[in-house]
Amino acid sequence: MDRIFYNGQIKTMEKSYHMVSAVAVKNGVIMACGSDEEVKALATPETEMVDLKGAFMIPGLVDSHMHLLLLSNKIRRTDISKAKTFKECMEIMGKAAAEKKGTDGWAMGIGFNQDDWSDSTAVPSRKDLDEVCGDVPAYIERCCGHIATCNTKAMELLGMMDAREGETDLKLRYFEDGTPNGVLCEDTVRLVEQYFPVPTVEEMKKLILIGANYIASKGLTGVHSDDLNLVVPEKDMPVIMQAYKELSESDELPIKVWQQCRMLTLPMIEEFVKENPAKAKYGKKFTVSDIKIMGDGSLGAHTAVLRGKYANAPEDVGIPLHDQEELNAMFRVAHNAGYPIVVHCIGDGALEMVMDGYELVQNENPKANMHHGIIHCQIMDEPLQDRFVKQNLLAYAQPVFCRYDSQIVDDCVGSELAKTSYNWRRFIDMGVHMMGGSDCPVEDCDPLANMYYAVTRMGADGKPWYPENGITMEEALNMFTYECAYASFAEGETGTITIGKYADFTVLDKNIMENDPAELLNTKVLMTIVNGKTVYEAK
Amino acid sequence: MDRIFYNGQIKTMEKSYHMVSAVAVKNGVIMACGSDEEVKALATPETEMVDLKGAFMIPGLVDSHMHLLLLSNKIRRTDISKAKTFKECMEIMGKAAAEKKGTDGWAMGIGFNQDDWSDSTAVPSRKDLDEVCGDVPAYIERCCGHIATCNTKAMELLGMMDAREGETDLKLRYFEDGTPNGVLCEDTVRLVEQYFPVPTVEEMKKLILIGANYIASKGLTGVHSDDLNLVVPEKDMPVIMQAYKELSESDELPIKVWQQCRMLTLPMIEEFVKENPAKAKYGKKFTVSDIKIMGDGSLGAHTAVLRGKYANAPEDVGIPLHDQEELNAMFRVAHNAGYPIVVHCIGDGALEMVMDGYELVQNENPKANMHHGIIHCQIMDEPLQDRFVKQNLLAYAQPVFCRYDSQIVDDCVGSELAKTSYNWRRFIDMGVHMMGGSDCPVEDCDPLANMYYAVTRMGADGKPWYPENGITMEEALNMFTYECAYASFAEGETGTITIGKYADFTVLDKNIMENDPAELLNTKVLMTIVNGKTVYEAK
Repeated sequence: MDRIFYNGQIKTMEKSYHMVSAVAVKNGVIMACGSDEEVKALATPETEMVDLKGAFMIPGLVDSHMHLLLLSNKIRRTDISKAKTFKECMEIMGKAAAEKKGTDGWAMGIGFNQDDWSDSTAVPSRKDLDEVCGDVPAYIERCCGHIATCNTKAMELLGMMDAREGETDLKLRYFEDGTPNGVLCEDTVRLVEQYFPVPTVEEMKKLILIGANYIASKGLTGVHSDDLNLVVPEKDMPVIMQAYKELSESDELPIKVWQQCRMLTLPMIEEFVKENPAKAKYGKKFTVSDIKIMGDGSLGAHTAVLRGKYANAPEDVGIPLHDQEELNAMFRVAHNAGYPIVVHCIGDGALEMVMDGYELVQNENPKANMHHGIIHCQIMDEPLQDRFVKQNLLAYAQPVFCRYDSQIVDDCVGSELAKTSYNWRRFIDMGVHMMGGSDCPVEDCDPLANMYYAVTRMGADGKPWYPENGITMEEALNMFTYECAYASFAEGETGTITIGKYADFTVLDKNIMENDPAELLNTKVLMTIVNGKTVYEAK
Repeated sequence: MDRIFYNGQIKTMEKSYHMVSAVAVKNGVIMACGSDEEVKALATPETEMVDLKGAFMIPGLVDSHMHLLLLSNKIRRTDISKAKTFKECMEIMGKAAAEKKGTDGWAMGIGFNQDDWSDSTAVPSRKDLDEVCGDVPAYIERCCGHIATCNTKAMELLGMMDAREGETDLKLRYFEDGTPNGVLCEDTVRLVEQYFPVPTVEEMKKLILIGANYIASKGLTGVHSDDLNLVVPEKDMPVIMQAYKELSESDELPIKVWQQCRMLTLPMIEEFVKENPAKAKYGKKFTVSDIKIMGDGSLGAHTAVLRGKYANAPEDVGIPLHDQEELNAMFRVAHNAGYPIVVHCIGDGALEMVMDGYELVQNENPKANMHHGIIHCQIMDEPLQDRFVKQNLLAYAQPVFCRYDSQIVDDCVGSELAKTSYNWRRFIDMGVHMMGGSDCPVEDCDPLANMYYAVTRMGADGKPWYPENGITMEEALNMFTYECAYASFAEGETGTITIGKYADFTVLDKNIMENDPAELLNTKVLMTIVNGKTVYEAK
């Protein structure tokens, strides 16, 4: 054996040997599970003995939807997510701009949420940023990634200052004088990145490792990551793919990555599926997993597409990223090429469009075992959930969204619809395959906190939000382990601690099954183990 | 939709929609499940409406271990399985020989079981056959396939009459005068087939269809079949493979076949894995599934390898088909090539050898998700079952064997070991993936009868045999549906009636879940549906 982990409380999620104290690993594969006595008997002089010291070990936690490279960028850039006021946010940006003064660099802040501020809940304008950043180009992105603000210098560099409402495809907002107010919406947000040169493959590998190492430190052994066309849209794809492949083949990648390949246009998909066989795996850690398409925007930015009106802003209707015809055409190409499709949908209007599209292409060309899914699946009434089940779709949920969304959903869509939305309990009761994720960097990719919200439905105001829609701890754990493996057709090789599967483990300092769910927030990740190797260890 | 099945009692084995009355199918894929009203709404003028008239529909039943081509041969040859006496068996063979008189043909009887006879329980000798068949070459094979008898003419044609004990590798039995008594054992049985020319691909296709159509008539939508090197050992492989591939690619094959590729020698495996990629699928119905190796013989013939002695014949020890070193070498090649391995093992001695071999090759080259398994898994004590679980092996069981084996196991191995043998209850409780099969033509491939024995443990004497080792009806159904799909990595595409899986259904005239298990023996298969097409319909 290469390594024997012993003296642990090991929850395998396996019927045959539910709790064990020791596991033996060789070549990355689980060779034995059992008592210390029986597993230690397999040791040879070469075996590395790992004393778990009573720690709690579970199957490796996986995040089923996030943006690894945006996380890397966030880590590299200025964190404004903790700002409690508009003033504090502006102060942080002022400091960041001062550091860039005299260079070509931009002051880039990531993660603000004006709804959290106590002094103003307006999205800042370019003039707000000008006051603190002056002529250093500055940019702040909202936590949801669907809205951002540039200062005047940045707007000039981007060539957006001359845009006027009705005369441009850019999704901008305007001052009363007709000039852009610096606020960018939806896909226009991503245009900012195009100003910068595409990183080289070597630079991209470094960027990936920044995020990947952070992810490993959170106890995650794998992520389903949506990265393409986000670093420098329409240009970054070959570089990102190459960087991931090389990192996996050289085994430098600490965690497993299933790529949800974000495609912006129909021609982009056509070209991509020609060059990339569906579900291809490179090395032991990188899989080209799905085609990812955007359905709508975010609830906080009122860009999520609802069937009805926003209860608190009847003039807003949401922004579908593609019309039905285009969506159908994109689905058709991906489906016919054998690619599972995942679509970002928050509003029930977008969900309905996407379900219509899935129904259409599956009717045109019925295929077995496709695993098409919907990411977020937030605003839904029960008939829409029933339809979801009948189309055998996969639900990619983000329980941690509960914290913030609990404060706005009832206002946005009314309580009748809010009550049946984010209804994980009903999805599980209906047998839906539902996997957990963080949408990091929208939220931190902390799977334990995420599980806490899945179970407690706790809101930022300290009150549980429709707690009857919550799930059990066991179900929450399943969402972040087995179900994530299922989504990517990998449940035979990971997702439980089973003899003959890969040794993907998360080691915690507490038995989370025996404690109050609130203790999840005080639980520490001691080790993250991928294919038998420790990729993170707490200091 | 191509077809809509309605007005049924449809047990989907799916959590989301457990019982429905209608299913819609297009291009072989399940598109909708639900009430008659909602599913009928999907009909177009082209849709074929199939009124199930209240019949009971379940996921397509699968047999996880049989020999399709031996079944074809049995259907073509003379059935002696129903003979109740030695005399009756000889009378049937006499008639068969009379029909062959004056041709080159042989009188070939298949399926006798001397233990069922009331007038003699000795295996017939060549002289017995000479009396009724004269100089027409004659051959009778026992139901287990591990023992056969030739008459003198046949022994002469086979060149076996000059063999003498200790001077030949042939596994024969002898008269007191030292001449062969006509009885052939184990692999020597298969040498008889080598006397005949190998069928052409077209002949082989016809032979396959004889068995396949019979199988469909039993309600089976698929089989895991062990055929290679059984029609004409060491020569038939390319012809059988080609015939299956062509039948699948042209969609003439009525059922799905996962081939358990029987390999007799190490060089044979080496060559086979070079030419055939593991798990390759040809057309929509034929998959090259596993490498099949023989571990030991049969209990009735006392050729199964026990750790202890045969309680009723201490001089018998069983016949391992390969020594440990050879077994290990064969496993190594198959395992390293990525092939799941299945081994025929009946006795605990053979089981132990095979588990040692699996442990060795997995230790040498740990691989995830291999699905190595053991076919029969009969004589086991609890520690051996525990070891089975800890190696994560798959159990291919034949519940129908209970009928006959219940009459001999206690005598063969003693009651202490008999009590823990064939212990399906304990296997399921421990989470073992266990799939049902018939070993047809050893037993008839009737999955309903097979389920009856799984639940009732009924013996031929009308007494249940250790009924506490039996399983529930639901578990038995799972054994012949989902678990068979799991074994061949196909649980994502078949095994339950799930939207997005292939439309493989079995339609019965009774709701087997609501009736006494004994009613399984009176339940009629009304239709067998594979990839949405009816491949069998009761007249």
